[in-house]
Parts: sequence; C-alpha cells; structure tokens
Amino acid sequence: MSSSERIDIEQSAQSRNEDVAEQNRQVFRQAGVTVMNMIGSPGCGKTSILEYTAGHFDGTFAAIIGDVETALDSERLSRTGVRAVPIETGGSCHLTAEMVRDAARELNLEEIDFLFVENVGNLVCPSTFDLGEEFKVAVVSLPEGEDKVRKYPALFVRAKVVLLNKMDLAEVCGIDTRRVKEDCRSLRNDVKVLETSAKTGDGFEEWFDFLRGCRA
Amino acid sequence: MSSSERIDIEQSAQSRNEDVAEQNRQVFRQAGVTVMNMIGSPGCGKTSILEYTAGHFDGTFAAIIGDVETALDSERLSRTGVRAVPIETGGSCHLTAEMVRDAARELNLEEIDFLFVENVGNLVCPSTFDLGEEFKVAVVSLPEGEDKVRKYPALFVRAKVVLLNKMDLAEVCGIDTRRVKEDCRSLRNDVKVLETSAKTGDGFEEWFDFLRGCRA
Repeated sequence: MSSSERIDIEQSAQSRNEDVAEQNRQVFRQAGVTVMNMIGSPGCGKTSILEYTAGHFDGTFAAIIGDVETALDSERLSRTGVRAVPIETGGSCHLTAEMVRDAARELNLEEIDFLFVENVGNLVCPSTFDLGEEFKVAVVSLPEGEDKVRKYPALFVRAKVVLLNKMDLAEVCGIDTRRVKEDCRSLRNDVKVLETSAKTGDGFEEWFDFLRGCRA
Repeated sequence: MSSSERIDIEQSAQSRNEDVAEQNRQVFRQAGVTVMNMIGSPGCGKTSILEYTAGHFDGTFAAIIGDVETALDSERLSRTGVRAVPIETGGSCHLTAEMVRDAARELNLEEIDFLFVENVGNLVCPSTFDLGEEFKVAVVSLPEGEDKVRKYPALFVRAKVVLLNKMDLAEVCGIDTRRVKEDCRSLRNDVKVLETSAKTGDGFEEWFDFLRGCRA
C-alpha cells in the first residue's frame, strides 16, 4: 500500500467522523445543551475540574468520560452526583463522534444545560477529531512546563478556552504563566485563558462565569 | 470501507513497522549500542532526565528526540554537549521504526554505548510501535497522579524500567508511590521501578547503575 493510499483511507475515516459530528451537533443544539470537548494530557486534572465544578456550580450538567482502559474517572465523578457515562476505547487514543453519539443516548439531554465530554488523556490525537461539540476546552497542568502550547499547536489553535490548572504548583515549579498565555494568544487571539486550581478552587468563579455566558 | 478492512490496513502498517524495527535492532546490536525507547506524557521530564544523565554519567550516549512540532527538546539537550537528532513528526502521535532508522544514519554508532530515543509525549500511541530498541523506559511524573499505570497498561506491561519522576513534588501532591509500584509489578513482575528527581538528582545513582548493567 502506498502512502497516498493510506492518506486517502485516513481522510475517508475523518470525513465519516465529520458527518456524525455534524449530526451530533444538531441533536445537542436542538436539546439546548452546550457541549464541550475537554482535551489535555494524562493527569492534567480534567476529572478534578469536573468534580469541583459539580460541587460549586449552579448549572446542571452531565459528562461523558473517555479513557483507554478503566472507568475510574467516571466512577469518581459519579460520586459527586453527576450523571457520568464512561467510554472505554480499548486502546484507541481519542474519542470519535460515533462513540459520543452512542454514549449520549444514555443521557436525558432535556434535563441538562451542559455536557462535558472528557477525551482520552492525550495532547495529540484528540485535537483533530470533531465530536459534535460547541467548542473545545484545553487543559494544561503547570508541572508539564511552559512549552506545551508551542509543542502541541494543533490543540491550542482550536481551543476556545484554556485552563492552566494546578496553579497551586506554579511557584514550586517555577512556571511563568505570562509566557504560556502569550503562546495561546499567538495561536488564537480570541482565546480565553484561565488560571485554576481544582485543589484550592482558585480561578473557578471565572470559569463558572464563562460557563454561564455559554449557556445555549 | 468496513471496520475489518481498516483493521487489516492497520495490521499491515504495523507489520511493515515490525520488519524495519527488526532491521534497526540488528544494526544497533552489531554496533554494540544499547538502544532505549523512552515513553511518557507531555512534560513528564524525559528531556530533563537526559540532561541530568548527560552531566553526571560516565557512559557515552546520543539521543534521537521526537516531537510533533518544534526541535526545542533536542536543542536543549544539545547544549549539554550530547549529539541529539530531532524528529519532527508533523502531527503524527508516535515515532516509527523508519523515522528512527533515518535519524540514526546521522549518528556515528561506533562512538557511543547508549542511544536514547525520546518518543513523542503521549502515553497511548507510542506503546505498541517497536522502533528496534533493546527495551522501553516509561516515565511517569508524580503530579499526574497515582492511577496512570492502571489507566495505560499497554505501556507499563512493555516497559523494563519505570522512572517515577518529579519525586521532589511527591509530598506536595500527596502521592503514595508504593501504590504505583504495586501497579507496575502487577503488570510485569520483573520491572525495575526507580524514584527520580531531575531537579534534585535524587535517585539518579540507581539509574546510572541500571544503565551500566545494560551496556551491550
């Protein structure tokens, strides 16, 4: 098989994914649900952000939680009372629109304002797969260093909002967040960048304000 | 295209990769070079570990440094005097045996004892692509949490050695490394697990001893 044949095959899979994503988006919009695709490295705090949001935010939401193996994160989130549907991808490195369509059928969309789709922990592959979301949320954990935006631009050029999480570790890790913010804005000048700590709750009021402003 | 056709195509790409990986392994063994495939999340400290190793280890080594975009890490490592060849994958989420074969041609293998191949920052996709290495080195950064081994078993079942890095943040992050070590051993009982900090140098004497024991 030639490399151009491989590219054709990948493009055909991407194109089928785009079609299902567009159908998902119509379903979500019709139900009045704002859907977010959360993308970040393993252990950057995606589930912790959802846990904190569940305990302090007055909006109603549900979650779809993707992982390569285990349903640990959806079990964690369920303990807060949020309806969380797990997707175990069984080795696949990102969610697809079909996976999200099937998981969303387990939810009553009429009952919620927001749906968070937590993607597989991975800064690369999830970036270019539309799931039918309204927008993407990127999460960067400060101990990962200052260079992640420059090294993984495919995500940051697509993310409407970036959470710089684990801000409680900024000082001990010696991270200058101004530089990270500049990198975000150089890729997308309308990006919203928030500094959060799901441990202390710092920055979450701004996150909640942002969410309220996105209500469908 | 049916999903079974897609699986056939993926298997054919994997099988071609295996062939090139086996050729690489023969070349490396003939030159007496011990080659390691380092895999870990973005920002887990792979390059920092190589920088610290360069400054304090008496063995001779070179590196091949993979990244989706930028040659920032290979430039960082080059400043220590180590010969570092960058591979920018241009969007691809893991290195392939062909990429490593081409990059290794820029090195004089006769001059070195060790070759570190730093894979793309990603806990998923690199795990199942053999590059022709002697063994895999997994790196986990403690702020990523205690559950990474259980959530990404495809890597940890294949890694001969696991570095639990950023140990200087263990206490502030409240991580119990005994649990992580147990998870590693439950997947592979002959695994070597080392606790390291590329910031303080803690644990590196054990890492250097391990490397000396692996000399081809």
